Amino acid sequence: MLLSQKFDLEFPSLKRNINENKLVYLDSAATTLLPKRVANRVYEYSLNHRSNVHRSSHTLAAESTLLLEETRDLLKDFLNASSSKEIIFTKGTTESINLVAYSLAISNFFNDGDEILLNSLEHHANFVPWQQIGKNFNINTKVFKNKDGIFNESEYLNNINKKTRLVAITAHSNVTGQIIDIKDLIKKIKNINEKTLILIDAAQYVPHHEINLKELNADFVAFSGHKMLAPGGIGILWGKKKILNDMNPFLFGGEMIDQVDYEDTSFNILPYKFEAGTPNMEGISGLNEAIKIIDEIGFDLISDHISDITQYAINKLNKLDFIELYGPKDSSQFGIISFNLKNIHPHDVSHLLNDLTGIAIRSGHHCAQLIMKDIGIQSSCRASFYIYNDKNDVDKLYNGLIKVWEWLK
Amino acid sequence: MLLSQKFDLEFPSLKRNINENKLVYLDSAATTLLPKRVANRVYEYSLNHRSNVHRSSHTLAAESTLLLEETRDLLKDFLNASSSKEIIFTKGTTESINLVAYSLAISNFFNDGDEILLNSLEHHANFVPWQQIGKNFNINTKVFKNKDGIFNESEYLNNINKKTRLVAITAHSNVTGQIIDIKDLIKKIKNINEKTLILIDAAQYVPHHEINLKELNADFVAFSGHKMLAPGGIGILWGKKKILNDMNPFLFGGEMIDQVDYEDTSFNILPYKFEAGTPNMEGISGLNEAIKIIDEIGFDLISDHISDITQYAINKLNKLDFIELYGPKDSSQFGIISFNLKNIHPHDVSHLLNDLTGIAIRSGHHCAQLIMKDIGIQSSCRASFYIYNDKNDVDKLYNGLIKVWEWLK
Repeated sequence: MLLSQKFDLEFPSLKRNINENKLVYLDSAATTLLPKRVANRVYEYSLNHRSNVHRSSHTLAAESTLLLEETRDLLKDFLNASSSKEIIFTKGTTESINLVAYSLAISNFFNDGDEILLNSLEHHANFVPWQQIGKNFNINTKVFKNKDGIFNESEYLNNINKKTRLVAITAHSNVTGQIIDIKDLIKKIKNINEKTLILIDAAQYVPHHEINLKELNADFVAFSGHKMLAPGGIGILWGKKKILNDMNPFLFGGEMIDQVDYEDTSFNILPYKFEAGTPNMEGISGLNEAIKIIDEIGFDLISDHISDITQYAINKLNKLDFIELYGPKDSSQFGIISFNLKNIHPHDVSHLLNDLTGIAIRSGHHCAQLIMKDIGIQSSCRASFYIYNDKNDVDKLYNGLIKVWEWLK
Repeated sequence: MLLSQKFDLEFPSLKRNINENKLVYLDSAATTLLPKRVANRVYEYSLNHRSNVHRSSHTLAAESTLLLEETRDLLKDFLNASSSKEIIFTKGTTESINLVAYSLAISNFFNDGDEILLNSLEHHANFVPWQQIGKNFNINTKVFKNKDGIFNESEYLNNINKKTRLVAITAHSNVTGQIIDIKDLIKKIKNINEKTLILIDAAQYVPHHEINLKELNADFVAFSGHKMLAPGGIGILWGKKKILNDMNPFLFGGEMIDQVDYEDTSFNILPYKFEAGTPNMEGISGLNEAIKIIDEIGFDLISDHISDITQYAINKLNKLDFIELYGPKDSSQFGIISFNLKNIHPHDVSHLLNDLTGIAIRSGHHCAQLIMKDIGIQSSCRASFYIYNDKNDVDKLYNGLIKVWEWLK
């Protein structure tokens, strides 16, 4: 039985036929399907409550403001953060990370000689902002390369020193599925240099694993709604209050302002000083429901379920001699299987798999070209799993790949 | 008959009772209500097609990519732009304007002595980014003040000279409802200095008036979906291709990249180089439907309808001697009525109007503190109209304000 069925979650997309085959959706690392319950919640909000925020105006505005702040409080509990003021709504992980990079740069946070440590394992969203904003603002960056695409903690730690002012690192690779033990890593980094700020790209991690911010000791955590059953266009940045307070605002506009004068402007308090413009209330209404669903299922069930499917898939696909699997291929690999069929372009594989079998995987460089270089490939196929998948889907993928291989070899 | 009824548009919120009074929604300048047709479209997309984009993967991804590019083409026609490549999706007007300001600054677009001309009439979203990014990057800004809050074209033009490298100006004040004849203004500005770039904040203008970019000769136009019947979290930036091509990317991340190397990155072509991160596909599906609705009704009907209501409201409210109206109070005032009740705080008025009569107006500084200073007030009440309003709503507002005055005077 699907985990989603146990919790009465409907995903109408899964009833679709793709060329007479029932859709098998193995692309959740890009975007999860949307539960009907979440779509219903957004629909109800849109039709009956939709309005701009600002508690003091009228009933609809008060309802929207309440929903916004309730969702912030929900996220505080979801992450075990110290304060709701540390929760900032963005449009996604990419904006969250750009916000931190730009804000630190314009706040003159980095001193001469300071270094940002980047990691070739990262999604471009946690690499290119630092590289480019580093260039634009003359901040040193250094790149840690991952041999064969596998992250090695002790080698990485050799690169942390007294100059390391910030590290930007993922908790879960979107290519290899490798889980980084960030709690342990953060402890060790702070032992070497307690002044090193740590930003965690948790876009892949948060949908499956509990984050306990009070224990984690990270400085920033970024993730997106659309990878965790919520609508698109809504992301989260969490940051330590003390640091956020010291940072200049990034985007300027409505709601983030206290007083504007012809010559200068003073800014609102946290979290509003980082939330310029009208919030995406439809996205927030859906995120609210998505968090409740994940809370109801619980991370123990979710992570056991996805871990089981992943290990089953590694063992099964490893049996196919025309397939090359990437990543650790052990229990540290979670939710994601990257692979290639020998001498066949991954786009051809994903196309044909879709057309012949209705199985949806992703192909390409997965916005992570550096880890591709580390592995020694240009691109790969990627299958990824969530609560509406089971081992049966892996069997279908196994059989589908044999079929595709027979066509293309 | 309501314009929305003629076109079979349902707005379920309008069936709500607020304390036993039917809701009268006069806050469209903040956010319009969402038509059921738009909510249905988003719902259908969310349940059956929702996925990340990237044409070359699987059927859902191809459908999402197609929807994204179809909506871009729809916007090209909607604005009569030269190319779909000039249409950039953002999260809203605020991000659109910040994008231009940051990108020009990091592209070293401004030379010593260049000046940005700002306008006290603006929403903070078209003032504070320029003021603050100007400070952060050492770019000169100058502020044009509007006497009594009324924009005077010839006085404004006196401030354009050979140093003026950019002007940021609204086409329609969100406080006074004054429409600026931007076509005429742009012509005159370019006559004085053809090198002056012109950014139009069209957030209030686009929901009611046709923009013909081929005739307008603006350089950038920014607006939001949520003020024109579309969901939140989706905005548009249009820019001239030649200028956009010369500008550096602003946000860095997925999809806006061509090649990433350990040392540097090359960027994608227009429009993608400005679209970092996963697009808000739910927002785009709704925007697609919203544009179709506006096209079906047509701007002639919409602007005549709103103009009629506005002039009726000016005349009617002017009869109440306890009310002070702001703005031009002539045919250049459109869609928006700002006012105060003598010696009464506007928050008290909006609260009581909501509670006693179910009429939703906004109160505050409307994210435009400088125009408040120009007028000589701290804040105001604001009633604004859209296609689901008629003169009957103005009568209700008139009677409601008398009731509120009797309570509070």
